Amino acid sequence: MSVTAPKGFTANGVHAGIRRQKLDLAIVRSTVPAVGAGMFTVNRVQAAPVKLCKASLALEEPWAVVANSGNANACTGLRGDIDARAVQAEAARLLGLKSEQVLVLSTGVIGQPLPMGKILPALRPCADGMADGPDAGRRTAEAIMTTDLRSKESVAQGPGFTVGGTAKGSGMIHPNMATMLAILTTDYPLASHAEALALLRPAVHESFNAITVDGDCSTNDTVVLLANGASGITRTPATDAAFSECLRSVCMDLSAQVVADGEGCTVVAEVKVTGAANDDEARAIAQRIATSPLVKTALFGHDANWGRVLSAAGSAPYNGGYAHLDPERVCLRYNGTLVLDRGAPTGVEPDVSGTDMTIELDLDIGDGRFMYLTSDFSYEYVRINADYRT
Amino acid sequence: MSVTAPKGFTANGVHAGIRRQKLDLAIVRSTVPAVGAGMFTVNRVQAAPVKLCKASLALEEPWAVVANSGNANACTGLRGDIDARAVQAEAARLLGLKSEQVLVLSTGVIGQPLPMGKILPALRPCADGMADGPDAGRRTAEAIMTTDLRSKESVAQGPGFTVGGTAKGSGMIHPNMATMLAILTTDYPLASHAEALALLRPAVHESFNAITVDGDCSTNDTVVLLANGASGITRTPATDAAFSECLRSVCMDLSAQVVADGEGCTVVAEVKVTGAANDDEARAIAQRIATSPLVKTALFGHDANWGRVLSAAGSAPYNGGYAHLDPERVCLRYNGTLVLDRGAPTGVEPDVSGTDMTIELDLDIGDGRFMYLTSDFSYEYVRINADYRT
Repeated sequence: MSVTAPKGFTANGVHAGIRRQKLDLAIVRSTVPAVGAGMFTVNRVQAAPVKLCKASLALEEPWAVVANSGNANACTGLRGDIDARAVQAEAARLLGLKSEQVLVLSTGVIGQPLPMGKILPALRPCADGMADGPDAGRRTAEAIMTTDLRSKESVAQGPGFTVGGTAKGSGMIHPNMATMLAILTTDYPLASHAEALALLRPAVHESFNAITVDGDCSTNDTVVLLANGASGITRTPATDAAFSECLRSVCMDLSAQVVADGEGCTVVAEVKVTGAANDDEARAIAQRIATSPLVKTALFGHDANWGRVLSAAGSAPYNGGYAHLDPERVCLRYNGTLVLDRGAPTGVEPDVSGTDMTIELDLDIGDGRFMYLTSDFSYEYVRINADYRT
Repeated sequence: MSVTAPKGFTANGVHAGIRRQKLDLAIVRSTVPAVGAGMFTVNRVQAAPVKLCKASLALEEPWAVVANSGNANACTGLRGDIDARAVQAEAARLLGLKSEQVLVLSTGVIGQPLPMGKILPALRPCADGMADGPDAGRRTAEAIMTTDLRSKESVAQGPGFTVGGTAKGSGMIHPNMATMLAILTTDYPLASHAEALALLRPAVHESFNAITVDGDCSTNDTVVLLANGASGITRTPATDAAFSECLRSVCMDLSAQVVADGEGCTVVAEVKVTGAANDDEARAIAQRIATSPLVKTALFGHDANWGRVLSAAGSAPYNGGYAHLDPERVCLRYNGTLVLDRGAPTGVEPDVSGTDMTIELDLDIGDGRFMYLTSDFSYEYVRINADYRT
């Protein structure tokens, strides 16, 4: 179950022919008035659909999302902008909505024009086949996959309401959200775009913005939340808190699925930094460790090479310099085993034979903390990315 | 020829037993009074020898360098500091110098105590065997190698003087100078530590600080310059300019050798950024491209995947945000072939079949420019780094 789990949402995924055989075009909509928000890549190079989403959200609340895989419609110039608008307009016409109520998401190859001759005719059968229920959710999740090996769905139930979501992402995974699309739906009643964004932001910060596969930030990353209030429940501070927690839970679940399905991933590691000067410095250090090729190849080799972790931590860019770290105070644990105690090696070799690893670095300076999820660098990662276009 | 090419320098490299079979301990000295300077890693975690070099340079001009491979003496706590001082003191005694006139350099495994029982007794035969001539220079170059496949030597001749140098570095290569040691010598007369540093800094900025293999910054990086004036020439503005150029030439040559010998390297790419808002932004963008795993795996695959270059360029951290880039203005060339013209794909497929590649990105915003050297990410890179300790 995913985007169709909350009440009042229908969806579909079809094969438009952008990709050779797989589903590659999806529509998700609220059947009743909805509000929503989006968060987008911060890359200076932004794909046409990203620019269009931002412009549309400034004018209307979003009711629906149309998404394609196989082509990112990025670095496609004016033609890309026109194509994205044409997809939006045709989908809106078929759904009986205003153009700006439909958000357009694309993912796939950069620099090639969107195959409009395939997408436009496929929108009608896609719209005609929209339904609620798990099959429609599954088809949507499949239609947004690119190099993903597994589709990603998540649902959280609150008291009287539901949050559902799907995401895609496997390579070019990095804050902020690189080559990642996520569509989140809920029947919880939210008042406005502003409220949806205020709730979405912290959930994304801890989840989609705290994962890395290869440290690359893409041109298309988008997380969209649609909320239609179809649950009919009356809001209280308690339900509001429950909603925030459900939203966070779905985002965390989907982002963990993205890392686990990272290109060539054989090991998933949680990098927990505590005791930093503040949360932002903890984040900078966790990110530096989680993106270090030397740390990631050591993960692949099941080698508790703590020198690389410490070396990465000591060079985490922060505020024009490096984040604070005193080598004499740090404690480091692999899977709970202390390997470095206040800067001195304990000589104990931790067990790192499993496919899940925890690296905990305590800086003993302040109260700052942050956790990152990362994958290893494997032969398969190199193979996939050396051969992607060929 | 390397460090013994200038007049008045002797050197030697021996097998102390830190590494299994290879040469692993070297001494370089000026036989007459010298001045000099060092530049060091900016990592918050600094190896004991780095701290000792800085402290010594604050007290005395350097006359000699003792360097070992096989052990970095990093993350070794107070014991590491004491060990580094003991090596320095024993080498100074054998050479008839003050302790602070001898700089200590270490490279190799992090977190293990220096094997003093092997190093201290090996210092005497090393000192006793010191000589000038190419063989002594070659032995020095070999003794500082770790995972390097080839030793690195370079010499530049000016009018009446010589600059020589050797470097080691293969993995953990990144600004600023990660796991890289370089020893530079010259018989050009320099007045002081301050002058040597002022001349060394720009040469290192363009060379050792403009290369990357894996984006990791180490705990030991050091570049040392010793100048003894033994050429006996009289300085003029013309010889000063020639010296700067010779120093730059040796640094560029050695840093290019380091990248070409990068772990698992099969392709070397020059990343030239022009037209940036300023040189610092050009550097940030070049560095972001040169360190992107997606760009580097594409190099390995001989794939002119310009979308990845553009995506990396658009997310180059600068000054708390991203460096300036207007996607509609950029031109991108692979090996001279225009693939992106003012943001629009030309559709021309460049020839990238060779082992050397040039990626030129013109931003058309300002006059900023910078060039980076980088290597590809190969299966072999993963193998070397997954297995390094085992």
